[in-house]
Amino acid sequence: MTVKLDPWGHFAIEKYEKLFTQFGIEPIDKVLDKLPSPHHFFHRRIVFGHRDFDKWLEALRRGERVAVLTGFMPSGHTHLGHLMVIEELRYLQSLGAHIKVVVADAEAYAVRRRSRREVIEYGREYITHALAWGLDPDKTEFYFQTANTPTYYRLIQMFSRKVTMAEMEAIYGRLEPAKIMAALTQAADILHLQLDEYGGYKYILVPVGADQDPHIRLTRDIADRFENELGLKRPSSFYHKFIRGLDGNKMSSSHPEYAIFLLDPPKTIRKKVFMALTGGRATAEEQRKYGGEPEKCTVYELYMYFLYRSDELLRRVYEECTGGVILCGACKRRAAKLLLEIIEEHQKKYREIAESGIVEKMVRIPDF
Amino acid sequence: MTVKLDPWGHFAIEKYEKLFTQFGIEPIDKVLDKLPSPHHFFHRRIVFGHRDFDKWLEALRRGERVAVLTGFMPSGHTHLGHLMVIEELRYLQSLGAHIKVVVADAEAYAVRRRSRREVIEYGREYITHALAWGLDPDKTEFYFQTANTPTYYRLIQMFSRKVTMAEMEAIYGRLEPAKIMAALTQAADILHLQLDEYGGYKYILVPVGADQDPHIRLTRDIADRFENELGLKRPSSFYHKFIRGLDGNKMSSSHPEYAIFLLDPPKTIRKKVFMALTGGRATAEEQRKYGGEPEKCTVYELYMYFLYRSDELLRRVYEECTGGVILCGACKRRAAKLLLEIIEEHQKKYREIAESGIVEKMVRIPDF
Repeated sequence: MTVKLDPWGHFAIEKYEKLFTQFGIEPIDKVLDKLPSPHHFFHRRIVFGHRDFDKWLEALRRGERVAVLTGFMPSGHTHLGHLMVIEELRYLQSLGAHIKVVVADAEAYAVRRRSRREVIEYGREYITHALAWGLDPDKTEFYFQTANTPTYYRLIQMFSRKVTMAEMEAIYGRLEPAKIMAALTQAADILHLQLDEYGGYKYILVPVGADQDPHIRLTRDIADRFENELGLKRPSSFYHKFIRGLDGNKMSSSHPEYAIFLLDPPKTIRKKVFMALTGGRATAEEQRKYGGEPEKCTVYELYMYFLYRSDELLRRVYEECTGGVILCGACKRRAAKLLLEIIEEHQKKYREIAESGIVEKMVRIPDF
Repeated sequence: MTVKLDPWGHFAIEKYEKLFTQFGIEPIDKVLDKLPSPHHFFHRRIVFGHRDFDKWLEALRRGERVAVLTGFMPSGHTHLGHLMVIEELRYLQSLGAHIKVVVADAEAYAVRRRSRREVIEYGREYITHALAWGLDPDKTEFYFQTANTPTYYRLIQMFSRKVTMAEMEAIYGRLEPAKIMAALTQAADILHLQLDEYGGYKYILVPVGADQDPHIRLTRDIADRFENELGLKRPSSFYHKFIRGLDGNKMSSSHPEYAIFLLDPPKTIRKKVFMALTGGRATAEEQRKYGGEPEKCTVYELYMYFLYRSDELLRRVYEECTGGVILCGACKRRAAKLLLEIIEEHQKKYREIAESGIVEKMVRIPDF
């Protein structure tokens, strides 16, 4: 088999294409050459689409006020899926953007039905990971949805006036009160940074998983309706594909055996990588003859997302695999080794941050 | 015609009776003898029903922690309908209860669709009236829904988890997002005083108009569901009949020509009283022969609600009317005179309070 497929992950993007045609998300391609020092998530099309990201980049280039807002759902321990967002934030921070991160503890409690104790602890853990991964504490703010300012809550209340049930159900389907509350809260998360109390208007960018686009659409509609009254403007956004769990489904804390958690003990991580779903053939002989299928392989995804930032190295893995040069066992051993180097270094920093007490100094943790 | 009807307003209560049978509101009658120094609103059945008011009174008697929470919808200038609630609060304060009053500015904005500027000004006006009418600033707290604590907003968020759309629609009918938000907010208004941050558990009494009972029912259900998690307990409530406008319909700022606003100029008030709907007969001769019908008369309602606190004086008005002794013109002149004495005295105090700056000292006024 000859190498024809694009090793940067283009092969998986077709699942996401209906997002372009049906909802008007723009493909990332046209924005790529406007990115200063582009991150590998972009040209590998892990970040595959956007809304008005070019406008945000243009504002950044012109030296106008820009900010980034994204969120974390504290319904489980932090895993590689969450780390993608943190990685994006670190990149955007390196471009000079101010970063604000919301811990969606109200939603995790009301919609995901976790206990308050759990969501607070998961939130604290996530913030610690974000700082350990290198977000600059002086240029990053974190907050919990349930411990914010009256102005922020006023927005949530005000937003309810200009959204109808029919509109919300067209976006989300049948809704319960908790979901209505969560959607309006997310809109306030994204838009409150434009208020005077928060320094006034700025271009907001929201980097999120593709499943969050309904919130972005609602928020853009709400911004339009409050442009005159409050001076709000539409946020920009970009969307990444989900990293898959080691069983090939979306990585999620609901399936902890297939997710790689950032605090997993090294032994656990090694075991998880070794039992991962790959694109290997039925026998070693077949694999040597036909090559493996990296587009199906969750281990290849680890290389592509986190293990090899160098395109050259990644291309080599791809070619070794499709050329039948390397078999899955050896490839997994290498991946596990690389991943453990990264994770062990990260865990060391995590412990430093946790012990430093900086999270409690930076963030108002809810009492209950 | 002989005097058979109950001059204390019993005659109008039948409209409210379905509230007893259909929704389980208790008639006020059995509680009357438990009231310390009863207010005329009670034995005149202006306050006609309640839920667990007897339990609240019992807690008060035993010296347990009690509080009163009620609200004001700032969608218009303060009129005699609002003054009824203030009057009830003054009475409850005289019994020793701590009073907290919410200005429902979020709801007035989102559901009644007033501008933020209007609702803030109407709220400020209302608070000034409440203090001018004699509420003790040291034993009364006021707050705007959009300028409260994170803990209060956390409750609103948390409540959304344990209420379904089906339940809310069974209580309120078809709902828009703004009404869902308003209903959950009202539940937090009533229940937040029981949280540790607010001094912990206490018996809450909510004195309101009969139309507010749906909120009370929802709030009691929510309290039950959060009893284990947050230690919340059902509030008590009592219900008053609405004072009618001078056209015989519910007094409302949507019909300003038939409402008596507390800041109306004396001339306006006199004019309004003179054109009020009465229970008079077609001719003076008929009226002398058959007597008037006070149960239809909006001027008689003024006597009953505000002008005569003495039952003896009120009975005399009733008998003069039904006996054909007094005609409507003379009765209105007397009513206008009595009302103006009260209102002019009140307006003087209102100006003092407004000029003192005490409202701004006591209450956090929203910025927008």
